[in-house]
Amino acid sequence: MVAEPPAQPAPAARRPGAGTPRRSRRGRLPGRQDWSTWPHYQAAERGFRGYWYPVAFSSKITGRPTAVTLLGERIMVMRDRGTVYALKDRCPHRGVPLSHGDQQFPGTVSCVYHGWTFDLRSGDLVAAITDGPSSPICGKVTQPTFETAERLGMVWIFVGDGEDAHPIDEQLPEELVDNPAVVGVRLQRRAGDWRFAVENGYDEGHAKYLHRTSLWRLFKPMPVHNDTRIVKRGRWIYRVQDRQYWEADFPGLGKWSGQAWYKLRPPKENAGNSNIGNTGGSQKVDETIAAQDFPGFASVSMPGVLRIAYPRFIHYEFYVPVDAGEHLYVGVMAGFRRGIRTLPFYAKYLGAVRWLFHGQFSGQDKWMVEVTDAPPERLYRPDDSLLQWRRLAEDVTKARTGQLRAEGLTGEDPEPEAVP
Amino acid sequence: MVAEPPAQPAPAARRPGAGTPRRSRRGRLPGRQDWSTWPHYQAAERGFRGYWYPVAFSSKITGRPTAVTLLGERIMVMRDRGTVYALKDRCPHRGVPLSHGDQQFPGTVSCVYHGWTFDLRSGDLVAAITDGPSSPICGKVTQPTFETAERLGMVWIFVGDGEDAHPIDEQLPEELVDNPAVVGVRLQRRAGDWRFAVENGYDEGHAKYLHRTSLWRLFKPMPVHNDTRIVKRGRWIYRVQDRQYWEADFPGLGKWSGQAWYKLRPPKENAGNSNIGNTGGSQKVDETIAAQDFPGFASVSMPGVLRIAYPRFIHYEFYVPVDAGEHLYVGVMAGFRRGIRTLPFYAKYLGAVRWLFHGQFSGQDKWMVEVTDAPPERLYRPDDSLLQWRRLAEDVTKARTGQLRAEGLTGEDPEPEAVP
Amino acid sequence: MVAEPPAQPAPAARRPGAGTPRRSRRGRLPGRQDWSTWPHYQAAERGFRGYWYPVAFSSKITGRPTAVTLLGERIMVMRDRGTVYALKDRCPHRGVPLSHGDQQFPGTVSCVYHGWTFDLRSGDLVAAITDGPSSPICGKVTQPTFETAERLGMVWIFVGDGEDAHPIDEQLPEELVDNPAVVGVRLQRRAGDWRFAVENGYDEGHAKYLHRTSLWRLFKPMPVHNDTRIVKRGRWIYRVQDRQYWEADFPGLGKWSGQAWYKLRPPKENAGNSNIGNTGGSQKVDETIAAQDFPGFASVSMPGVLRIAYPRFIHYEFYVPVDAGEHLYVGVMAGFRRGIRTLPFYAKYLGAVRWLFHGQFSGQDKWMVEVTDAPPERLYRPDDSLLQWRRLAEDVTKARTGQLRAEGLTGEDPEPEAVP
Repeated sequence: MVAEPPAQPAPAARRPGAGTPRRSRRGRLPGRQDWSTWPHYQAAERGFRGYWYPVAFSSKITGRPTAVTLLGERIMVMRDRGTVYALKDRCPHRGVPLSHGDQQFPGTVSCVYHGWTFDLRSGDLVAAITDGPSSPICGKVTQPTFETAERLGMVWIFVGDGEDAHPIDEQLPEELVDNPAVVGVRLQRRAGDWRFAVENGYDEGHAKYLHRTSLWRLFKPMPVHNDTRIVKRGRWIYRVQDRQYWEADFPGLGKWSGQAWYKLRPPKENAGNSNIGNTGGSQKVDETIAAQDFPGFASVSMPGVLRIAYPRFIHYEFYVPVDAGEHLYVGVMAGFRRGIRTLPFYAKYLGAVRWLFHGQFSGQDKWMVEVTDAPPERLYRPDDSLLQWRRLAEDVTKARTGQLRAEGLTGEDPEPEAVP
Repeated sequence: MVAEPPAQPAPAARRPGAGTPRRSRRGRLPGRQDWSTWPHYQAAERGFRGYWYPVAFSSKITGRPTAVTLLGERIMVMRDRGTVYALKDRCPHRGVPLSHGDQQFPGTVSCVYHGWTFDLRSGDLVAAITDGPSSPICGKVTQPTFETAERLGMVWIFVGDGEDAHPIDEQLPEELVDNPAVVGVRLQRRAGDWRFAVENGYDEGHAKYLHRTSLWRLFKPMPVHNDTRIVKRGRWIYRVQDRQYWEADFPGLGKWSGQAWYKLRPPKENAGNSNIGNTGGSQKVDETIAAQDFPGFASVSMPGVLRIAYPRFIHYEFYVPVDAGEHLYVGVMAGFRRGIRTLPFYAKYLGAVRWLFHGQFSGQDKWMVEVTDAPPERLYRPDDSLLQWRRLAEDVTKARTGQLRAEGLTGEDPEPEAVP
Repeated sequence: MVAEPPAQPAPAARRPGAGTPRRSRRGRLPGRQDWSTWPHYQAAERGFRGYWYPVAFSSKITGRPTAVTLLGERIMVMRDRGTVYALKDRCPHRGVPLSHGDQQFPGTVSCVYHGWTFDLRSGDLVAAITDGPSSPICGKVTQPTFETAERLGMVWIFVGDGEDAHPIDEQLPEELVDNPAVVGVRLQRRAGDWRFAVENGYDEGHAKYLHRTSLWRLFKPMPVHNDTRIVKRGRWIYRVQDRQYWEADFPGLGKWSGQAWYKLRPPKENAGNSNIGNTGGSQKVDETIAAQDFPGFASVSMPGVLRIAYPRFIHYEFYVPVDAGEHLYVGVMAGFRRGIRTLPFYAKYLGAVRWLFHGQFSGQDKWMVEVTDAPPERLYRPDDSLLQWRRLAEDVTKARTGQLRAEGLTGEDPEPEAVP
């Protein structure tokens, strides 16, 4: 009641589409009441199964088990003689996390409680130490395992529905597979629905307003509004800026502009590369980046990967569902160069991008993702970007689910559950 | 199990009348099982709609938005060119609190996320900055607004069901409207159901026992028990003390008294002003207070206002429902004087009342309101004061609800919900 | 998602047998899905009624009321002229804890709010101070009381279903009733279901693996596995170790042993007292302990009492249900001696047992009890000890419940509720 810090909605209230909206005369909020237009998307509060997700820096995964949570599943990850293994993090005996245990024999992990010992590769129970070598339970229990990979300095895990994992390179942004790249990465666990994070990342409208005060944009003007189209190419949808408006006169209110005397001047007209970077700058474009011939500077693909192309580097954001209402933010800055030419990249990353872009600028997004509370929601014209993303997620998932059902790999229930 | 700090009931358990009481042979508690005798009162865990409530000091409400919660509703409050405005604190676009935003144009507030801009007076969406001046959404969205007022150095907000607000002066204690007054105010957000706070405030029984150890009563004796009647006059019900008993002899137990050698002597017989103040003192009564001719020194009115008349000042408590299980305590000391004569008032307020009465004494009430856990409850004779208050709240609300229904302003549901 | 501290299951998830297990093709976990084989045991998340439980050190219970929670009931405990009394810790008037109050008259306790005064022995309301000596409510209200006792330096409370308490000495371990004993006691409130604590305590399998790293076992080897039988005698079931295996060779994995160069050598063959202590040591056995002729060194009885017999002392653990998911650990070291001979006992207790055994060793058990998450569970051969304990608890409770029903003292509902 009395003056208080701005309230955050309670976690329960943040789950999109959960429960039936209230429709009383007094209580009904304007706009869209739920996400039932996209039923798979609405149900995906813990993420979409059937994809690879980054979970930790490779350097943090050692011979000592580590616990991670991914799409609501608790997973133990550890390294054995160079290879990373991932097992369900719950000993089937009495439910104690395997991540509390350690390694007693090469190629295995043992539960701390009674020494149940699992083969890291197959998940087979190969010994129950405290029942001796002739324990009849050996060979009768198999712990669920997950496929793993290492890319971009991180460990990735595939969470599916029993099907074989597709090659991770089919899922990574193509330019990162086909070219040598140098990367700077930031991992941060964040509150808020992972879908709010994707929608915020790809949202056409907010950057020009929310981020106008960020240090990253201190000297660079931001447009007030844009003419935008969304185009699809392959697995990606792209935002194409047909025109940028650097100031505007709002009837009855006055002029408004993202410019300031200390900021660079915006370009007189749209440069040829206006879709590389969003400042309208005319920097020379890196040839690998130019070769991609991106239709627009911002693009998104499943299961929640954002790509922002700048003239000299590409910025990616991977939004990894941890559990309902929590996600892992993975910010990646990638440059396409080798050897001595990586030095200026590191200088730029460590001297600026890490703190200003992946840090304070992205911190504003973190704030919004925490306080977004939708549906209900009342969308406006620039939200076409959101709608196209939801449509993409829905269509791809519908196709995948249909295929799994044809293969007998999934039941009726569209809700993710534990791996068998 | 082992020795532990005295337990407080869990928040959920503190909601009166919530859920069906358990009636098994073993579990049934004695006395009244619920508050269904007063159905509107039982349903009012978030307070009664249709009233003005103080929410903050006027000095704290500036051009920078502030979030308050009142009767379970999140409200943004801000000042624009001297006037205070209040809007529902949830941008209809994506649910972000408007209180995170700021002002971009005079007479408006803008959401921090995408610059949706609302007229403070009407709630109309007058611009969506990031969609430019021709955004088709303008004029199609109106944010709910609340009427505001400023009195006694505080901002007040009217929460109703769609009807026009009555003038706030019809609701304030009459003597504060008709006379110049000087006030000292304390605001404190407190745990506990707002109804426990009203009931505690008007409760005839507890003061003499609970507060006998307070510093405010250090030198003043308290009666052991009283003969009391409740009388109604206008909007108020009054406690009339017909007789005070300064000591008592409990059969089989012994004598008990609120007196002590270091306390003042209680009066030999009830003085003519025994209903002004509750110590039986014989101080000369301020003429404005005397002119009110209060039938009793303690009175209460809707929607939860306590008035304790002392010879030289009146003490008020406003119990403002924040949300289920939380309220705002507003303690007001008022003197009816002007100019140089306010100086001794301030000296008494700042030197004693604020710390001893609104502070430590009221802190004992805060403690009881936190740990009260009713129903079930087993009432006793002095609880007639509680019962009369509940009856007042029920009757007034029944009449108001009937009138709103006749005007088509409310539906079947007696539960408060969001303003349309 | 990213590296995180090993997860603990959420409290709700720790309640054994609560709710229906999920049986989807993907989600079904291996093994036993619930505890419906033992319905009374499955329902006993707040403990078994009809027993004495230790709640606090005697020295901590004084004339000032103390709040304890036992089997989900909040109880006020206080001492009056040497005797300990226990009353339901909720004043029937308005639900305020009596433990917030104090004593106004000998033999009574008064509620802090309005001075309702209860006889400590009978629970009768003998005065309502603020309603004077003639208050009509006196004699109409009786507060539930609990029988109390003092043993082993602790206060014990009987929680039943309305029946008279059996003598506490019928429930204590027989040797503690029949012989002079000196004790060292540790009380610690712990998270986790009390049943996990009993099961952990009597569990045949874990000690040899989990505790092999404890300081208490620093110089003593632990077997790898045992041949074990469970035998019943009187109220107790005993673990009989027929054979201990000090090392083992696991096919395809290698040798594993609880021995180390700095540990004592294990005995060549099982000594005659191999069932006293579990290290295979050959210390001379105390004559009182020898006289018990225990069939095995580890035994358990209702309502959750563990007894581990060592050559020179006996160690007991009482697992006292506080509420769902919380228990009180009571570790007792007892020696059967008097006078000057108690000095070496105290030296051993204070110098070693308290820190190494009741402390760090037992802390490993505490850790496991916190993270156990069953059912579902997949038991193995050494879990026969668990199964026999559950069978004992089920059989004894079935007999007791049948008897109470015959006496008309309990209804259909097997769930514990408040005492009438």
